[in-house]
Amino acid sequence: MTEICPAPLVALAQRLADASASVIRGYFRTGVTVDDKADQSPVTVADREAERAIRAILDAERPDDGIYGEEFGTKNLDAEWVWVIDPIDGTKSFIAGRPIFGTLVALLHRGTPVMGLIDQPIIGDRWLGVTGQPTTHNGQPVRVRPCPGGIAAAMFGTTSPDLFPGEDYDAYRRVAAQVKVSAYGGDCYSYGLLASGYYDLVVESGLKLYDFAALVPVVIGAGGLMTDWDGAPLNAASTGRVIAAGDPRTHREAMAALAG
Amino acid sequence: MTEICPAPLVALAQRLADASASVIRGYFRTGVTVDDKADQSPVTVADREAERAIRAILDAERPDDGIYGEEFGTKNLDAEWVWVIDPIDGTKSFIAGRPIFGTLVALLHRGTPVMGLIDQPIIGDRWLGVTGQPTTHNGQPVRVRPCPGGIAAAMFGTTSPDLFPGEDYDAYRRVAAQVKVSAYGGDCYSYGLLASGYYDLVVESGLKLYDFAALVPVVIGAGGLMTDWDGAPLNAASTGRVIAAGDPRTHREAMAALAG
Repeated sequence: MTEICPAPLVALAQRLADASASVIRGYFRTGVTVDDKADQSPVTVADREAERAIRAILDAERPDDGIYGEEFGTKNLDAEWVWVIDPIDGTKSFIAGRPIFGTLVALLHRGTPVMGLIDQPIIGDRWLGVTGQPTTHNGQPVRVRPCPGGIAAAMFGTTSPDLFPGEDYDAYRRVAAQVKVSAYGGDCYSYGLLASGYYDLVVESGLKLYDFAALVPVVIGAGGLMTDWDGAPLNAASTGRVIAAGDPRTHREAMAALAG
Repeated sequence: MTEICPAPLVALAQRLADASASVIRGYFRTGVTVDDKADQSPVTVADREAERAIRAILDAERPDDGIYGEEFGTKNLDAEWVWVIDPIDGTKSFIAGRPIFGTLVALLHRGTPVMGLIDQPIIGDRWLGVTGQPTTHNGQPVRVRPCPGGIAAAMFGTTSPDLFPGEDYDAYRRVAAQVKVSAYGGDCYSYGLLASGYYDLVVESGLKLYDFAALVPVVIGAGGLMTDWDGAPLNAASTGRVIAAGDPRTHREAMAALAG
């Protein structure tokens, strides 16, 4: 049985995103220093300060919950409720000055995402997905669009061809060869736009839990499908290969293309 | 000798972009029909209506000038002054609901771009480049940034790996393998952000005159370099292979990587 996400925790997620947005807006296009993590992805001062702001609220209001953050690691991961946060998903877009990155806040109940929030603090786009409820964009319900033509008619999005490791690259090329239109870049923003009916298919690989946990309730609550490349539900144990689709046919055909 | 672009024509370009922006804002994220051109790129009602709005002003105020438009073809191309317009550069981003497309207005004097404007009507980013003057972003002068480490330290942008035809794809992969960070998507927007010092290098191929004419004065007026892949200036006779760089070393090393 899927746990219902308590309304006060949904309200708290909104406040976490508000706090993060205040920090991030102050750093956008200000030429903050870009330093390197071990994995060479750019991480900014804004990312760290925003995660600190989120953690300060969680530590004060939900001290027993777990936290899985991109920047400052994990805490109480065996708790019933675990918050999964990534203040700036799409750091490359952030440092490029492009307002298509997003803040991700997810809540896991025993490892399964039951609430997810995608916030674009510069434009002011916020998608909220809660298990069992319709996904909203800035407070208004949104739906995926049908794509009766399947993958051959699909608007496809993925962040970068360089993010598919090893044989996953060939699998992605098979998908890209079958879709109607491809748009690159976008990170989490593509999944929000899929929930709103602008994309039909997003395929990525190598995602971490903090990259995808918030996206799942947003896509599913909008009537879409979001699974791993084998069609299995995404949870804390997933490998980071994800498909999001607005239409079951597109989802099925994308899985087939990925399998080769 | 480079012709000076008369101030009234710069003011006119701003009004053309204003007229286009009014049309485009009314269609963004409204689910307009996407139809196909012969080249399969998505073209929207917004694109056509915006070009009509621009042409109506030019026909009334500058009836003897030439026009080179993406949607409605050419007129008086042997005139001294030729306007080159693309109301929505980045139609894939537009139909995806991403505010990183742009309206391009360029003015050629005997085939050479002497003025260029990049306008993002949703966010409100406008870059203006005029030969012999500093490029501005929303009225404030901007400069490219130095990149003393060259291509190995560069933030690289390109719209899509799928836009490099034939052997150009391998050339692009050689560049992508040498840069520090790659960000995909963006079309004209990447060049504006390069002028503002957020990207160090943009490489593309297969561009039409209406895709690149407006970008040249913006990048050069910000202190950057923008040429074809052989280092030659871009004009109406160019092939559509372009490099934009903020730093001469990055530009030189990108040319070498492209040449293989």
